[in-house]
Amino acid sequence: MSEPTRVYRFAVNVTPKPGILDPQGKAVERSLPHLGIAGVTGVRVGRRVELAVTATDAEAARAIVARLAGELLSNPLMEQYEVEALGETPAPAGAGAAG
Amino acid sequence: MSEPTRVYRFAVNVTPKPGILDPQGKAVERSLPHLGIAGVTGVRVGRRVELAVTATDAEAARAIVARLAGELLSNPLMEQYEVEALGETPAPAGAGAAG
Repeated sequence: MSEPTRVYRFAVNVTPKPGILDPQGKAVERSLPHLGIAGVTGVRVGRRVELAVTATDAEAARAIVARLAGELLSNPLMEQYEVEALGETPAPAGAGAAG
Repeated sequence: MSEPTRVYRFAVNVTPKPGILDPQGKAVERSLPHLGIAGVTGVRVGRRVELAVTATDAEAARAIVARLAGELLSNPLMEQYEVEALGETPAPAGAGAAG
């Protein structure tokens, strides 16, 4: 039998790097007066990707997420990312571990 | 003179509601085999908006963010949001409080 696995949940928060123009953030800021909202500044719009990884330990799971974040979910020229652990649960019976 | 103000930083995490189709998440899942990544499931792609609010207290700041999140940053039919406090600092001299 294979090693027992667990399901690790993560979020990857991808945001524009400091200094990189963020047109979506500027669009939000320009909309604020129309909503009557004052005092909001520095709006930056990025992506949040939530996912689950089935793996034998937290370190292996995090390595997979870091690879995914750097190679698929973010553009390293313009964006930075942070990986956030959201929790873990035992894997359901029959779930395959991450390769 | 007006009340002293502080700058409160927040993130608004907007994600597709459970049960709502997420084509971006499915596209990520379909890309995984090409990257040789296994064991990743339940990918959901949303937005992360980071911003700063100048206000007299944390409660007032959070109320502004909740309004912004519900009225501008998310589509309440298809999306849910969470507000995450990222920290606070004294406001620079001359900064106006949120209205």
